[in-house]
Amino acid sequence: MADYLESLTRLAEQFGRLKGVGRKSAMRMAFGVLDLDDGEVEEFATVLLDAKRKIHPCPICGNLTEREHCAVCSDLTRDKGMICVVEDVKTVLSIEQVREFRGVYHVLGGVISPVNGITPDKLRMRELLQRVGEGEVREVIIATNPTPDGEVTAMYISKYLRPLGVKVSRLAYGIPVGSDLEFADAVTLGRAIEGRRDL
Amino acid sequence: MADYLESLTRLAEQFGRLKGVGRKSAMRMAFGVLDLDDGEVEEFATVLLDAKRKIHPCPICGNLTEREHCAVCSDLTRDKGMICVVEDVKTVLSIEQVREFRGVYHVLGGVISPVNGITPDKLRMRELLQRVGEGEVREVIIATNPTPDGEVTAMYISKYLRPLGVKVSRLAYGIPVGSDLEFADAVTLGRAIEGRRDL
Repeated sequence: MADYLESLTRLAEQFGRLKGVGRKSAMRMAFGVLDLDDGEVEEFATVLLDAKRKIHPCPICGNLTEREHCAVCSDLTRDKGMICVVEDVKTVLSIEQVREFRGVYHVLGGVISPVNGITPDKLRMRELLQRVGEGEVREVIIATNPTPDGEVTAMYISKYLRPLGVKVSRLAYGIPVGSDLEFADAVTLGRAIEGRRDL
Repeated sequence: MADYLESLTRLAEQFGRLKGVGRKSAMRMAFGVLDLDDGEVEEFATVLLDAKRKIHPCPICGNLTEREHCAVCSDLTRDKGMICVVEDVKTVLSIEQVREFRGVYHVLGGVISPVNGITPDKLRMRELLQRVGEGEVREVIIATNPTPDGEVTAMYISKYLRPLGVKVSRLAYGIPVGSDLEFADAVTLGRAIEGRRDL
């Protein structure tokens, strides 16, 4: 039956192109569009084009922006001497929500992953070296994900930055706040013991 | 930070309007759109408008179609004497995938749910009575979901159709094929015993 509804199938295909959306969710969302009224669907289409047209990476840090520079880079109160290196823009969003970090970011655009053909030159690594080389930076906090590729990337960056005389740190590993030790996996628990702090 | 990316937030809102899409998934999909290239996003917008413009309910059964009548109703090989009553179009799709049922459908557009203010006159109930009243129909198979509201709706339909001299049946309840009796819930198990068949 769905074969006859060509435009619905095509719409589901469009949703399916988005990262992380499976075939079934895509079809469910295509049906969801039919539940919206005409005006809402027109707005959806307009906003879709609008977002794609307006948003681009910040030339300094690689974060997303609609202006010349991103909100963080153009904020004069942020500490330009402290750069937090992240894999992608979503991590910037997560860290910004905490409202703890007052430095600036550097978005790598991925992690080193030889298996997937991602070598350091495919990431915004040179831009990072250049920013640090300009001398204003005191500390680089590496906030790649705690995955094997994220670890390798962190070590790679640290190796290249240390000779420049900059402090390089890594986010703390440990037991998530509010969780139960009983459910912590062995690796996390090992890291938590290793990184224990004096009380 | 996301507050500055107004067009991204607005795009996430659009995704969030679709039934069953939460705030986090909506944001993830909005980011997904940025990963597509310009041409793909333009195609997405076009297909979105296209689907909404072309698809409408079949005037006979309420199923979705891009033509005058739906694929099932306009198929001359389908048995018009057997109507399967379903809550929504998604159920039509599921049943069609089985390729077992050769009759036609009647989409109610929901189930009776006094709590949510859905009374029988808000569903395509009158159209069903009319179709059955025309005399060609021998059997009505009620395929509403096995929820309390679905049950009430099934009983309501059955009560109104029986006087018209038509056979009214309900999908079989029981243990899903391939599952383990150990994991069946009590209600399903009870129904499976009640509906047992001679071997």
